[in-house]
Amino acid sequence: MSPLNADLLDLPGGRAKLQTPALVIDLDALERNIAAMAEHARKHGVALRPHAKTHKSVEIARRQIAAGALGICCAKLGEAEALADGGIESILITSPVVTDRGIARLLALNARVADLMAVCDNQMVAARLDEAARAGGKKLRILIDIDPGLGRTGVSPAEAPALVGFVAQAEGLEYAGLQCYAGQVQHMESANERRAASLSALKELGALRAALTAQGLAPKILSGGGTGTFDIDPDARVLTELQVGSYVFMDRQYNEVWPGARAPFETSLYVQTTVISANRTGLATTDAGFKAFATDAGAPVIARGAPEGASYFFFGDEQGGIIYSQSKLVPGDVVSCVVPHCDPTVNLYGCFHVVRGEMLVGIWPIEGRGRSA
Amino acid sequence: MSPLNADLLDLPGGRAKLQTPALVIDLDALERNIAAMAEHARKHGVALRPHAKTHKSVEIARRQIAAGALGICCAKLGEAEALADGGIESILITSPVVTDRGIARLLALNARVADLMAVCDNQMVAARLDEAARAGGKKLRILIDIDPGLGRTGVSPAEAPALVGFVAQAEGLEYAGLQCYAGQVQHMESANERRAASLSALKELGALRAALTAQGLAPKILSGGGTGTFDIDPDARVLTELQVGSYVFMDRQYNEVWPGARAPFETSLYVQTTVISANRTGLATTDAGFKAFATDAGAPVIARGAPEGASYFFFGDEQGGIIYSQSKLVPGDVVSCVVPHCDPTVNLYGCFHVVRGEMLVGIWPIEGRGRSA
Repeated sequence: MSPLNADLLDLPGGRAKLQTPALVIDLDALERNIAAMAEHARKHGVALRPHAKTHKSVEIARRQIAAGALGICCAKLGEAEALADGGIESILITSPVVTDRGIARLLALNARVADLMAVCDNQMVAARLDEAARAGGKKLRILIDIDPGLGRTGVSPAEAPALVGFVAQAEGLEYAGLQCYAGQVQHMESANERRAASLSALKELGALRAALTAQGLAPKILSGGGTGTFDIDPDARVLTELQVGSYVFMDRQYNEVWPGARAPFETSLYVQTTVISANRTGLATTDAGFKAFATDAGAPVIARGAPEGASYFFFGDEQGGIIYSQSKLVPGDVVSCVVPHCDPTVNLYGCFHVVRGEMLVGIWPIEGRGRSA
Repeated sequence: MSPLNADLLDLPGGRAKLQTPALVIDLDALERNIAAMAEHARKHGVALRPHAKTHKSVEIARRQIAAGALGICCAKLGEAEALADGGIESILITSPVVTDRGIARLLALNARVADLMAVCDNQMVAARLDEAARAGGKKLRILIDIDPGLGRTGVSPAEAPALVGFVAQAEGLEYAGLQCYAGQVQHMESANERRAASLSALKELGALRAALTAQGLAPKILSGGGTGTFDIDPDARVLTELQVGSYVFMDRQYNEVWPGARAPFETSLYVQTTVISANRTGLATTDAGFKAFATDAGAPVIARGAPEGASYFFFGDEQGGIIYSQSKLVPGDVVSCVVPHCDPTVNLYGCFHVVRGEMLVGIWPIEGRGRSA
């Protein structure tokens, strides 16, 4: 069966007729975002390895690579398997893989992907990765994951040299460098605080690099950074590649990182929803609730289709509510929203509906959706 | 390719080896919940039409029907299409379908499902449903959706008779009764308040039934209720069928509806997660974050695998955190959590991993996942 809404492809006005809730990409804005980040990286002499956990899409990964990225990041093994199935050949998996069964999958993936890298923050796990890789016959490339003070994953800079040394001498492993992602910094709303915090984390990473270099363990790759610090991190001259993800879509949360100023990237991602009930004055109910938006970052922002000043609230699993004071919404009215947080919202949908202006020009599968294991 | 974890089926200890995050059903508990609700309905002389928006699964719908349910509810057209594809023959779609393209899909579904019902709360929409159904040649059965004071969907009781009259005389439609779902009542933690609020809503519905009956428009079906009021609603003798959903799984939110008392249904749904990093004292990081749990209802509750007194927090899109004070967690440790809110959490996963004790005995697809349109 062809996917829902496929009958609207390439017809005038198809965007307004989508069965909803639908995840919509404004292709012009997406293309400009991909080009702008690629240009930024070229200008600053840093490589790009965009994080595919944001979009989970082979098509978007291909476009990022075509624009100059040297590969992509995936958050999880399953996501990497899905994108490798789509032909992506250079993948860094940014979360530690630690179970025996996971390590077996990792090595199977290593055997079929030209350029795979994994991360490690634990010597016992490193020993098991080494053992499995030796049995597999192809070295597994490893970045040592460094904790930038967030405490989520990574080894502390003080304890890193021992782990680096272990991995560097392991026969089955290739010590490729370091990963350091300061997730806690990305959404700081004060530009000065964001800059200070990010540069401080990178300064510590730079000191670690110097210490390792003095021991003959110079890291070739230093991978990290995010959309919130994309224009800060290159100044530290520590990272060799940026793991930026959200810039392709943007969302309410990232738009608020540049308050009062124009965000450096455009919103290209929307959830389109339809009014299904409007029997009360100033209140309309839509078809997009907790199953249509990730809810970890508050409410969506209405971008178009509702009266000026209208606001959106979650009205349960299946529905949203719109509170408004002017004109009148009626069942069938179409409303588009900026999503609160792009990554986990994308993870709710099977496909992107890709539009140029008012025309539906593509339906792209989200191959990595739900591949969190 | 066979699904992830299929190699563990029917092996001893398979549950502990699942690649995670994984959505796990304790089959013994699920079976007891289905049987207990069926027995409750029989005892009180009320029919069951369980809401499949909770599980979105053909297998679970079949089991509910086998236990005596007269059919199921679906929240959305796409969900109904998915369950109809799996052979479910009696479906009520509980949200209004209002667009021309949606109505066309609804009539196509009506043509292939033995017993389909839709809801309506708007006369202009009713006129379009009527027109489409007349063209289709098979009457479309309609429940008039009544607003119990929530304001989400439904027509007010005062305005209902006019809409009932319109639908009853429409050639293409069959007036089958009323729907009234008091969603605002389901999670009230005070049993007395919950009882009073639910019975008050049903009293108004009873008055509407009497008024309609006096006009020769007696509703045959009165459909409504939920897990939170399953043992209250039958006393009002107004509803002919209960739309209970969450009772099959339960979750942290519904367990809290019966504080201090034993909940009437067992928790049968868990998210199983694995520790991937544990380099700090008293803090471990797991592989289950915003993409593995719906976040609208707070944090998960650890059910097993972590030290006594440990608590779970969301640590971003891909990870969770466990704070604990005793013993030591290490990478690879397996932790199971009760989900905060079952419906939107199920909507994140492609399948259920079904266990009896420590054995994986089934992998059931979630056919309606993501079918919110």
